[in-house]
Amino acid sequence: MSHQNRTEINKLGEFGLIDKIAEKFSKQNNSTKYAIGDDAAVIDVGDYFQLVSTDMLIEGVHFDLSYFPLHHLGFKAVAVNVSDIAAMNGIAEQITVSIALSNRFSFEAIDAFYEGVKAACDAYKVDLVGGDTTASPSGLMISVTAIGKVDKDKISYRSGAKVNDIVCVTGDLGGAYMGLQVLEREKQVYLENPDMQPQLDKYQYIVGRQLKPEARMDLVHELLDLKIVPTSMIDISDGLASELHHIAKHSDVGINVHEDKLPFATNTQETALEFKLDPNTAILNGGEDYELLFTISQEEFEKVKNHPDIHFIGYINEKSSGLNLVTTKGNPIPLKAQGWDHFS
Amino acid sequence: MSHQNRTEINKLGEFGLIDKIAEKFSKQNNSTKYAIGDDAAVIDVGDYFQLVSTDMLIEGVHFDLSYFPLHHLGFKAVAVNVSDIAAMNGIAEQITVSIALSNRFSFEAIDAFYEGVKAACDAYKVDLVGGDTTASPSGLMISVTAIGKVDKDKISYRSGAKVNDIVCVTGDLGGAYMGLQVLEREKQVYLENPDMQPQLDKYQYIVGRQLKPEARMDLVHELLDLKIVPTSMIDISDGLASELHHIAKHSDVGINVHEDKLPFATNTQETALEFKLDPNTAILNGGEDYELLFTISQEEFEKVKNHPDIHFIGYINEKSSGLNLVTTKGNPIPLKAQGWDHFS
Repeated sequence: MSHQNRTEINKLGEFGLIDKIAEKFSKQNNSTKYAIGDDAAVIDVGDYFQLVSTDMLIEGVHFDLSYFPLHHLGFKAVAVNVSDIAAMNGIAEQITVSIALSNRFSFEAIDAFYEGVKAACDAYKVDLVGGDTTASPSGLMISVTAIGKVDKDKISYRSGAKVNDIVCVTGDLGGAYMGLQVLEREKQVYLENPDMQPQLDKYQYIVGRQLKPEARMDLVHELLDLKIVPTSMIDISDGLASELHHIAKHSDVGINVHEDKLPFATNTQETALEFKLDPNTAILNGGEDYELLFTISQEEFEKVKNHPDIHFIGYINEKSSGLNLVTTKGNPIPLKAQGWDHFS
Repeated sequence: MSHQNRTEINKLGEFGLIDKIAEKFSKQNNSTKYAIGDDAAVIDVGDYFQLVSTDMLIEGVHFDLSYFPLHHLGFKAVAVNVSDIAAMNGIAEQITVSIALSNRFSFEAIDAFYEGVKAACDAYKVDLVGGDTTASPSGLMISVTAIGKVDKDKISYRSGAKVNDIVCVTGDLGGAYMGLQVLEREKQVYLENPDMQPQLDKYQYIVGRQLKPEARMDLVHELLDLKIVPTSMIDISDGLASELHHIAKHSDVGINVHEDKLPFATNTQETALEFKLDPNTAILNGGEDYELLFTISQEEFEKVKNHPDIHFIGYINEKSSGLNLVTTKGNPIPLKAQGWDHFS
């Protein structure tokens, strides 16, 4: 470690840092099918592929306990990792949950957290198989690893999208981000006047999207039943635009998505307008919805065209055409990824 | 979360907390062979068992960067998890490494950390397959998950020790603990007088035991070659006495270990005496040596009796006889586990 040269992490950004780290390492074991660069690592265990994904949640960076109940946090910590396994078209079966906590936390607080973990384990049929519990100098840190499985002929990478494939997205977007804005505002109001009670009734849907996101395992099971293997897939943790960039980069393609096809809830739109925000900002760049973004070949369209919760937002093009948002007026404008980068 | 009842975590201790958490959860998937309670979780992937272990390392709790070089820390973070896989008689093949770091850390510092991770990956033939990189409000937190494999007929649990089995330990004990005492003392000297340079030459062996522990994969491979499957095994992370308690509890047996058989390095003994500590305190209760403690049936003894690095320290007895240290004078005294508990 040389103190003569100092490169700030935020100059590289999270993805730049990951690239720098990844280029150091090479594969040594045949069982390692795919390492860094997708939603989960892929291990060949013989009969099938095993998927491994891991995420850290840090107090003061990823969550604020002044409005995030611990049992919701436990649920979310599991759900976001199950979502990464879903993004490979896989089914999570095991998780490990590690926590580091300061003496500010009582056993009852930790118990509430694990009640949430258990609710998610039950909801997604996942077994808690291990973890580490330790002290921290301050705050709460959570690290979850999810392990899942997928048949070798059913795995979806980010890299498989082909020209003319249809771009699909589940659910609605931007809600978790707007929910966070509401929670942050109510926190400020409360700090300025502790007699004020938070006014959240009107924002129930979007606050729920932030505090209790669901992994879309239901869609993974439905696609299995319909015998559809997405040509590419990713979950929307950092925002639609950022995830589209990942698909375009890994699949070496261009993508056009249509503004008028982007799904959002009325509650999201109304709240964005109340906050004097363009709803598209929340829809394209708001993170943490944990919906699935995937591509299917044209032949599969008939099977899902009437699905109430799958939205067809665009097409895969040649790489040269780039990544564009086609506005309601029909103009393609280049789409920038303004995903969440905790280092910037 | 009720604030009426508040139970402090340190009243439960780490193992008490883990027990309370574990009793909440039950198994839902057939692939989950063994969950919480051993060095690693066990997943049945068909042809073999897969092992999963995870550990968190928190700045200010597990390491002090004022004397712990980042590349050593990267090596150690991997080694301690590979050691958990070794403790199940398995071979680690993949790891994930997650880090949360404050803006105090430059890219060059993180690069040094990952150089250490890479050195360990090369040493243990393990592939880095994923991880998470994120910001932290202060300090460095590391979470590593190791994934390994073991043939179904070769796995060693904590629970398999049988009466008359021989208790074995590799390497020497207490060194990492005494190395830590030296490093902490030199830090104090430096803080009081920054012109003083640390005097570490005399303590090179024990300081190395603290800063660069090795997972005993060499022993796992040797036992495989000798066709010996330990009847029980655990790695020594919390101290010999604590690990013996785990074996006794899980195997439902008693254990006698003999004071005059406990292996230690001269450097450990001399430094303990210099610190006015009973060397047995370091040997029995000092953690972080990452040696292997295991039991073998009497029939296997011939195969290893001349092994230079395996020490035969005692025997498995009926449960009723308890866990005892037989002193040099031949007196059995009950052995208390004073392992490291970061909550107390």
